[in-house]
Amino acid sequence: MQRLDLLTATRIASHAIGHARETGFKPLAVAVLDAAGHPLAVLRDEHASFLRPQIATGKARGCLGMGFGGRELARRAQVMPAFFDAINSLTGGEVIPVAGGVLIRNAEGWILGAIGISGDTSDNDERCALRAIDQAGLVADHGDQPAG
Amino acid sequence: MQRLDLLTATRIASHAIGHARETGFKPLAVAVLDAAGHPLAVLRDEHASFLRPQIATGKARGCLGMGFGGRELARRAQVMPAFFDAINSLTGGEVIPVAGGVLIRNAEGWILGAIGISGDTSDNDERCALRAIDQAGLVADHGDQPAG
Amino acid sequence: MQRLDLLTATRIASHAIGHARETGFKPLAVAVLDAAGHPLAVLRDEHASFLRPQIATGKARGCLGMGFGGRELARRAQVMPAFFDAINSLTGGEVIPVAGGVLIRNAEGWILGAIGISGDTSDNDERCALRAIDQAGLVADHGDQPAG
Amino acid sequence: MQRLDLLTATRIASHAIGHARETGFKPLAVAVLDAAGHPLAVLRDEHASFLRPQIATGKARGCLGMGFGGRELARRAQVMPAFFDAINSLTGGEVIPVAGGVLIRNAEGWILGAIGISGDTSDNDERCALRAIDQAGLVADHGDQPAG
Repeated sequence: MQRLDLLTATRIASHAIGHARETGFKPLAVAVLDAAGHPLAVLRDEHASFLRPQIATGKARGCLGMGFGGRELARRAQVMPAFFDAINSLTGGEVIPVAGGVLIRNAEGWILGAIGISGDTSDNDERCALRAIDQAGLVADHGDQPAG
Repeated sequence: MQRLDLLTATRIASHAIGHARETGFKPLAVAVLDAAGHPLAVLRDEHASFLRPQIATGKARGCLGMGFGGRELARRAQVMPAFFDAINSLTGGEVIPVAGGVLIRNAEGWILGAIGISGDTSDNDERCALRAIDQAGLVADHGDQPAG
Repeated sequence: MQRLDLLTATRIASHAIGHARETGFKPLAVAVLDAAGHPLAVLRDEHASFLRPQIATGKARGCLGMGFGGRELARRAQVMPAFFDAINSLTGGEVIPVAGGVLIRNAEGWILGAIGISGDTSDNDERCALRAIDQAGLVADHGDQPAG
Repeated sequence: MQRLDLLTATRIASHAIGHARETGFKPLAVAVLDAAGHPLAVLRDEHASFLRPQIATGKARGCLGMGFGGRELARRAQVMPAFFDAINSLTGGEVIPVAGGVLIRNAEGWILGAIGISGDTSDNDERCALRAIDQAGLVADHGDQPAG
């Protein structure tokens, strides 16, 4: 795949929400964005609270805007809090540096987009993201390895 | 139905985009919001331009925020331009007064949510909205009859 | 060409500013954005006033966000002023509906990005845009023909 | 030189991006601003992530707005975090206090402008800035000596 399309994005988002339901996680919102940071599918479980879609979108958009998965963003925010504070004032909060934002890559390693999830703990949000990307035959990059 | 759920919202949004594709309309973005104005499903055809999801959301949110379909909002904006300018400065553009925003009601007439569509002409955007609501067994209120 | 690169974008922007200087137009700012609306090259003649880069970026970004050249946006804004007022409140002024914003297409008609120019009259801004795109072997779409 | 012009600014920005490419650094965005903080040249490598131009501009603008190079800003932000938080709320994130923002001075020591770079580590961003300023025959002030 060279470019995320709406059908794939909707499947990924639906799968993540479905997985949370089956597992007994809290209700989620999920945002799947294209490589440029523009939304393809933003879904909210009708029982999820109402800021969740915005937070999910921010998690995904921050990964794409900076080029790292959410765990790497979190690591950097801990080391450089003033930098991340400044970025968020600058961009109106576009970089949410926690787990649950995951880059979506194809088999060749190119970034196709990102998913952001909010609703349960960051770790559980991320679990749903990884599973949904995997199930679509794509490659998840959540920033587990410190970026070079 | 007493309350829109994610599944219904996703079906409505997908149906509207599919109908545009079959008909040869331009690529659309569609937002389906619950009665409180919060998103359940926002989908963007991967060929739609990137401001469309925001505009679609604004069309739907304006209908819910004011309690009228998009045609009635358009009618009022023409008669009272200073009022709508002021509302938009006040709310950061939450009321987009054109066709393509449609209230979703149940058989008893209660508002369950709204759909907003952007991408083709306002009239064609609205056609897709009406058809998708109808196909879900719900009642569309696009503001065709001037509200009392 | 399938995707604008920095080198091409810088050449287009430099050419537009050079053309204004040779012709005796007022000093310009020029923004060249990729298809997703993100900047590749934003240049300001040192004699151009300081809001010009922001306006140039807005002209280009509005074309991409809505999918039309600046002349078509201007035509629509005249017919639907309330819609464009609302969009600008919503997006923080991302749609500047005047000539001087031009879509950049390749020979197959795909949108590669857009250029926005500000500094002289809108017509002269646009002249520089058209010439710079043409000189790069790409196709300008300034919205001269009303969009369907 | 008494005043940065567009040609010099474009050369500095292009040189910095070229140096990153040759060295194998990550793709960069570079902003060169005049002494008043207004952009002359903002360039983004087509492979750099999309928040980079905004961050690069913020790094340069913070140096000019406060009168120190990025390292001195970083030093102060560590000592006075509440002050920098307040500045960023006040100014919408105009002060990004990390390495990679560098004042550009002439031989007499007058500030002509600043460069901001984002894309690789702050240290590597700064290396590209120093080299590009040097190559233009101008004097870099990255705030390495604590300001008085």
